[in-house]
Amino acid sequence: MFERKLFSNIRRQTPFKEILVSQGRYIVSFQPDHFSLRRVFGIASYSLAVRCNKEMDEIKSVALRLLQGRKGMFKIETNRADKSFPLNSLEINRELGSFLENNCLCLVVDLRNPTFVFSVEINQQGVFMFTETIPCFGGVPTGVEGSVALLLDGEASVLAGLLVMKRGCDIFPVRVGCEAENISFLQQFSPAPLHSLSFIDFPSLQQWLFHKKINFLVNGQTFSNFVSNNLIISQLRPLVAYNKIAIQEQLTEYHKAANFQSI
Amino acid sequence: MFERKLFSNIRRQTPFKEILVSQGRYIVSFQPDHFSLRRVFGIASYSLAVRCNKEMDEIKSVALRLLQGRKGMFKIETNRADKSFPLNSLEINRELGSFLENNCLCLVVDLRNPTFVFSVEINQQGVFMFTETIPCFGGVPTGVEGSVALLLDGEASVLAGLLVMKRGCDIFPVRVGCEAENISFLQQFSPAPLHSLSFIDFPSLQQWLFHKKINFLVNGQTFSNFVSNNLIISQLRPLVAYNKIAIQEQLTEYHKAANFQSI
Repeated sequence: MFERKLFSNIRRQTPFKEILVSQGRYIVSFQPDHFSLRRVFGIASYSLAVRCNKEMDEIKSVALRLLQGRKGMFKIETNRADKSFPLNSLEINRELGSFLENNCLCLVVDLRNPTFVFSVEINQQGVFMFTETIPCFGGVPTGVEGSVALLLDGEASVLAGLLVMKRGCDIFPVRVGCEAENISFLQQFSPAPLHSLSFIDFPSLQQWLFHKKINFLVNGQTFSNFVSNNLIISQLRPLVAYNKIAIQEQLTEYHKAANFQSI
Repeated sequence: MFERKLFSNIRRQTPFKEILVSQGRYIVSFQPDHFSLRRVFGIASYSLAVRCNKEMDEIKSVALRLLQGRKGMFKIETNRADKSFPLNSLEINRELGSFLENNCLCLVVDLRNPTFVFSVEINQQGVFMFTETIPCFGGVPTGVEGSVALLLDGEASVLAGLLVMKRGCDIFPVRVGCEAENISFLQQFSPAPLHSLSFIDFPSLQQWLFHKKINFLVNGQTFSNFVSNNLIISQLRPLVAYNKIAIQEQLTEYHKAANFQSI
C-alpha cells in the first residue's frame, strides 16, 4: 500500500513516470525538474547519479569525469548490492581511490575528515555514482491514511495541512465565511487536485462532512488561540503546542521546497 | 504576569532564590546545580559569568585568569548597557583583545572565524564575563495559561505533557484504568507538585474534570493511533502530526536536560 501509493504520487506530482525498483532504491531517468521530488511526502532523500556498466575501467573513467574540477579530501563509500561483482566494497574503495588520487592532483583520500563523500552503488541495474544527497521531507505517502478536511483560516492552517499530508492524509480544503485562501502552495505537495469549498456556517460544513463521510477536521489553532466550536466531529490541531516562530520556521522550509520548481 | 511567573518558577524549581533583573538580564549567584535552570520553561539560555568591578585594569586581569589554558582564535563581544563606562564597546574589544593576545601566547584575535567568543557585559551591577551560553528550552513559563489535565497512557503522553507545559499550562496527570505511570520525570519540569490521579472509567474522569473546572484533556495520540472517545471536553493532541522517531528524539532532548541534575 505504502509503496503503491508512493509510486502513484511520484507519477502525479513529478515528471518521473517510469520508476525502477532495485534493492530498496527507486531508479528514474534524469529530469530537469527533479526538485519536484522534494514535494512528494514519503521520500527521505534522493541523489543525482551517473550510471555506467559494471566494469572497473569504465567506473574509473566515469568517476574521473564526474569529479573533474572538484578538489579536497574525499572518501569513497561503496555499496555492492550485486555480489557477483568481482571486487568487494573495500577493494573497490581502495582501487578507485588511488586511481583518482593519481589522476586528479587536487583530490586526496581522507577517511577521517573528508570534505565530501563519493558514493558508488553496484546493483542489478548497473553502477551508480554520486556525490550529493538532496534531503526531502520523509513522512508517509499522502493518501495512505484516507481523507481529512482542512479548515483554512490563515497561514498556520496551511502548515497544519502540510503536516497531516506528510502523515498520510489527503486533504479537502474548506473554509467558513472567510475569504478564499490561496491553495496553490498546498497543491504543490498534494498528489490529488485541490479545490477549496466555502460554507456559510459551521452547521452546513458539518452536514457536508457527514455526507462525505469525512471524520476529521484539521485546523491551525495553537494553544494560545484555541477556539472551541460545537462541531460533532473529531478535530485535529497539529500545531497546538507550536508558537509563531516555530510555525514560521517550518513554513519557510516548505516554501523553499516549493520554490525549487522555478530553477 | 509572564515575568512574575518565571520568577516564582525559578524559585520553585531551582536552588536560585535571589534574582536580580538588570537590562533584561536575570542575575543570580552561582549554584552548583545551575543545570536545573534548563528545566524551567520560559528561559531561552543562560551563562556562567565571572563578575568584577567596572575598572579596565580589573577587567583585564580577571579576563586573563578566566582564559588561562584556553587557546585558539577568539573574538570579544562587548555589550555596554551602562553608558557611563568611559570606553565604548569597540574600544573595550580592542584594548582587551590586544592585552589578551600579548599576555596569553595561545590566543589570537580573529573576528571572522573565531573558535570561541568572549562576552563582556557592562551594566549597573558590574562587569560580567563569560565564554559559554547554555541553551534551554525557551517557551512560556508553566502556569501562565492555566491548567489542563494530562491523560497518561505511555511515553508519548509524557512528551505531550512537556509540550503543553512549555506552552504555559500547569498539568494534572490522570489515568484511566491503566497502571501507574512514573511521573518523576515530568515533575522535574513542573513548578507545582504533581500527583497522578486514577479513574476507573472515562465518565468518572469527566465528572472530576467538570468539578475541577478543567477544560482541556491532553493526550499523546498521534494520527496513526488516534482514538475517538466520547468525552464532552476539548481534547488536545499536540503529537497528532508526529511519528515515533520524532517523539523519541524530542524525549531524548528532555531526558538530557533532566539528567544534568546528577552532575
